[in-house]
Amino acid sequence: MTMLQIIERKKLGKELTEEEIRFFARAAAEKSVPDYQLAALLMAIRLNGMTDAETTRLTLAMRDSGDVADLSSIPGIKVDKHSTGGVGDTTTLVLAPLVAACGVPVAKMSGRGLGHTGGTLDKLESIPGLRVSLTEEEFLRQVRETGLAVVGQTGHLAPADRTLYALRDVTSTVDSMPLMVSSILSKKLAAGSDAIVLDVKTGSGALMQRLEDSLHLAELMVRVGNQAGKPTVALISGMDQPLGTHVGNALEVKEAIDILSGRAGGELKEVSLTLGGLMLMLARKTETHEEGVRLLEEALESGAGLRKMKEMIAAQGGNPAVCEDVSLLPQAPVRKTVCCGREGYISAMDTMALGSAAQAMGAGRLWKEDAIDYSVGFVLRVRLGDHVTADTPLCDLHARSEAEAQAAEAAIRGAIRWSDAPCGRGRSFYALVTSEGVTEL
Amino acid sequence: MTMLQIIERKKLGKELTEEEIRFFARAAAEKSVPDYQLAALLMAIRLNGMTDAETTRLTLAMRDSGDVADLSSIPGIKVDKHSTGGVGDTTTLVLAPLVAACGVPVAKMSGRGLGHTGGTLDKLESIPGLRVSLTEEEFLRQVRETGLAVVGQTGHLAPADRTLYALRDVTSTVDSMPLMVSSILSKKLAAGSDAIVLDVKTGSGALMQRLEDSLHLAELMVRVGNQAGKPTVALISGMDQPLGTHVGNALEVKEAIDILSGRAGGELKEVSLTLGGLMLMLARKTETHEEGVRLLEEALESGAGLRKMKEMIAAQGGNPAVCEDVSLLPQAPVRKTVCCGREGYISAMDTMALGSAAQAMGAGRLWKEDAIDYSVGFVLRVRLGDHVTADTPLCDLHARSEAEAQAAEAAIRGAIRWSDAPCGRGRSFYALVTSEGVTEL
Repeated sequence: MTMLQIIERKKLGKELTEEEIRFFARAAAEKSVPDYQLAALLMAIRLNGMTDAETTRLTLAMRDSGDVADLSSIPGIKVDKHSTGGVGDTTTLVLAPLVAACGVPVAKMSGRGLGHTGGTLDKLESIPGLRVSLTEEEFLRQVRETGLAVVGQTGHLAPADRTLYALRDVTSTVDSMPLMVSSILSKKLAAGSDAIVLDVKTGSGALMQRLEDSLHLAELMVRVGNQAGKPTVALISGMDQPLGTHVGNALEVKEAIDILSGRAGGELKEVSLTLGGLMLMLARKTETHEEGVRLLEEALESGAGLRKMKEMIAAQGGNPAVCEDVSLLPQAPVRKTVCCGREGYISAMDTMALGSAAQAMGAGRLWKEDAIDYSVGFVLRVRLGDHVTADTPLCDLHARSEAEAQAAEAAIRGAIRWSDAPCGRGRSFYALVTSEGVTEL
Repeated sequence: MTMLQIIERKKLGKELTEEEIRFFARAAAEKSVPDYQLAALLMAIRLNGMTDAETTRLTLAMRDSGDVADLSSIPGIKVDKHSTGGVGDTTTLVLAPLVAACGVPVAKMSGRGLGHTGGTLDKLESIPGLRVSLTEEEFLRQVRETGLAVVGQTGHLAPADRTLYALRDVTSTVDSMPLMVSSILSKKLAAGSDAIVLDVKTGSGALMQRLEDSLHLAELMVRVGNQAGKPTVALISGMDQPLGTHVGNALEVKEAIDILSGRAGGELKEVSLTLGGLMLMLARKTETHEEGVRLLEEALESGAGLRKMKEMIAAQGGNPAVCEDVSLLPQAPVRKTVCCGREGYISAMDTMALGSAAQAMGAGRLWKEDAIDYSVGFVLRVRLGDHVTADTPLCDLHARSEAEAQAAEAAIRGAIRWSDAPCGRGRSFYALVTSEGVTEL
């Protein structure tokens, strides 16, 4: 078997065998075939597609291209959660402490932000002293002792994905369903959990902007996850506006603490509880996800979630006092509130542009090597469908300089559409996808 | 404009603009974008196709990526000829002297053999002393003085093609009509002639084995050639058996001399005269190609063609006495004739396998750097449809050793199919394609 024969078969629209798929996944991990052959194959996959069986084979082959975490020393069913990425999307920091407070262990490996989306590791690192690089042993011990850890990858997970992902980015093959699914699920499977909850975003700030594409992606991931032997469900949630009101690393940690302290609510809380409820259901803690949501609400009201958050921060070397006093988080030097400046209804937001505005303020990276400023970002004071007047606050800017605050203000104003007539609010959820099918929410 | 945007647009099936096509042709020539991006684009072109307009743009952009030969110092209309490649296909060596003998200048740049097909330059170099590497000045002077020169490329022609052709070979994108057409025609246009005759082979020894594919390729080349401003016609000729009876470098030179001397005939003569007739027609020497064929026959019968061949060989430093005594050509040490060994009809030949058999004897190259042995090859003594008995000679082997002769014999026998019932002969021609349309022949 040669790489050329594999390219040839996919070019002709044939279904690749397990042997062929393992050959090229291993070659990608070991970089033993030239990039141009991988690039040609990626484009052939993008244009000719893959069957579910091929996508499952690719997912498993990519999982097996590196280390697979062994979480068996942690008692109970471990459930992972993955979001396809959005703006103001801090669900991990809200749901992980709550799920752990309900007695279900959360052993989570998260990622960094890139482009217009934030990353959980960056947000956590805005907490003074907190470490996200734990050894595998430290990670497992912390979960066994406290029930909760959120860290960077502890092993060399899915190296085939690293090669393919980098190539997809520069060959216009990011938007291939089988390649997206295998990239996401191979890493989740390598992270070692027993079941997976997926949060598939749809709307102007999402990877997939059209609902039908998001649904298609979710259904494929649920089929492949289950075929790979891991119970998998997916929530389709809205990303037509930032999920939380806060955008920026320390600001998003603050919002998570505000929610865990009972001071804040809104869509971020609602989506976090639903995803957490699904985790409790897959962990067999509850029969349904609605029951799970009720358990999480109790953990929130009793303060157990906030206590678990403090415990985790302390265990990872951070200052748990941020949970009592959020002003201990990094503060930007320039803080100002700007108003809407006109009357009307908020009819639409270019959420990706809002994410890019925060990135331009210093909250995100354009390149992997870029440094980020944890303190900067903004709090959006309006939601889709809101009626505002000229004096209604539009947003609070947290910037490094007056000039950057002004640039951000212009970008945020440019990302918002107005209407003179009343218009609808954003939707938090669209559907729940399980192995049984799709349920509209 | 970036390479990524160009890949993206072709991936989505869009028509690329002239600016976009010139961008990537230049990038291929200068190697200023990574191979993996070119590979992804080639696969997108292979799978999503190109319009005629795009193919013409690509052809012209590739032509302009390097030198364009200037033949204007040679009086008259210069007509080039190109074959898509076959086995025992020595038409250039037969028709070039005849066309030149009719007063139409032939300033031809040829190529080397690769894989199962031979190359005119290799065949010519089997003539003792003959040089195919002339400077541009020597080349032009020789054509002005003798009316004929067949040489290697004198300039840096179509460097974009060199990059893309090498990549196509390793990314399974050789079989893309727009890429084939632009590769062939960009080099022909860069070679500077005023009009082009194409010999598109079809059958078991051809690039395109199915008639409909060959016809499609021929029609596209004729449209693109004419759109590029050069009158272009294409002959669809048969390659279900070697065109000539001789396969191997010196052996094919011998067959060309035999034809020019009036000692041999057959399909090679017939196809050469037809292609030469088309050249005389495009050079406006005759009204029709049939009249052209008659002129060429006169040049053959009068010996003018053979004299022109001698003149060319002498001008390029070779020994013209080979035209009188073909035994001056390199001779293989082992020569033997093998017989059919059974009675029956020759019903089919795997012509590519016959070409590979000659290659394995040392007549061709597997890699560009390989040396070749001019003396080796074989003369096939049977044609499709022939009735033979056990004692009928099958072929004369010209080998470096007894072992190689035996291996070649086995390969040749394996490439021939037999039938007990009478069966059809091979066809020399299928159709003539001009800007007016397709004429069946």
